[in-house]
Amino acid sequence: MKLRIVVTLKNGVLDPQGKAIEHALGSLGFDGVNDVRAGKIFELDVADDTSDEAIDEMCRKLLANTVIENYRIERQ
Amino acid sequence: MKLRIVVTLKNGVLDPQGKAIEHALGSLGFDGVNDVRAGKIFELDVADDTSDEAIDEMCRKLLANTVIENYRIERQ
Repeated sequence: MKLRIVVTLKNGVLDPQGKAIEHALGSLGFDGVNDVRAGKIFELDVADDTSDEAIDEMCRKLLANTVIENYRIERQ
Repeated sequence: MKLRIVVTLKNGVLDPQGKAIEHALGSLGFDGVNDVRAGKIFELDVADDTSDEAIDEMCRKLLANTVIENYRIERQ
């Protein structure tokens, strides 16, 4: 079973990487870029019988820092 | 206009971060994890009149290293 885990910073958490990209795009001549947020994506190939609870636990224990990050599980 | 740019390593390119996560999940007791690939995601808010060519150029010039990475543009 293929999964995508998308980890993004919570609203209100400063994102210096995103800001740097936003400024760099401006410097490169791309106008109209209002906001950039950077995040992480993990593509997992897990056994078909893996429970939803186990997947959620993987995110909370290892893949995301739930203090500052949100995660979203997408099945493919 | 909100966009998601998903940047992943090309097949065949070594992914030590993904491998480290795979081993860590095993150590934490999660069985059945066959493969993990790590990537990046950028959430952009751009002007509505931004052309597809400009978005593609942003990816090629700044967001992705096309030698080793693939990128995918997802409109929301």
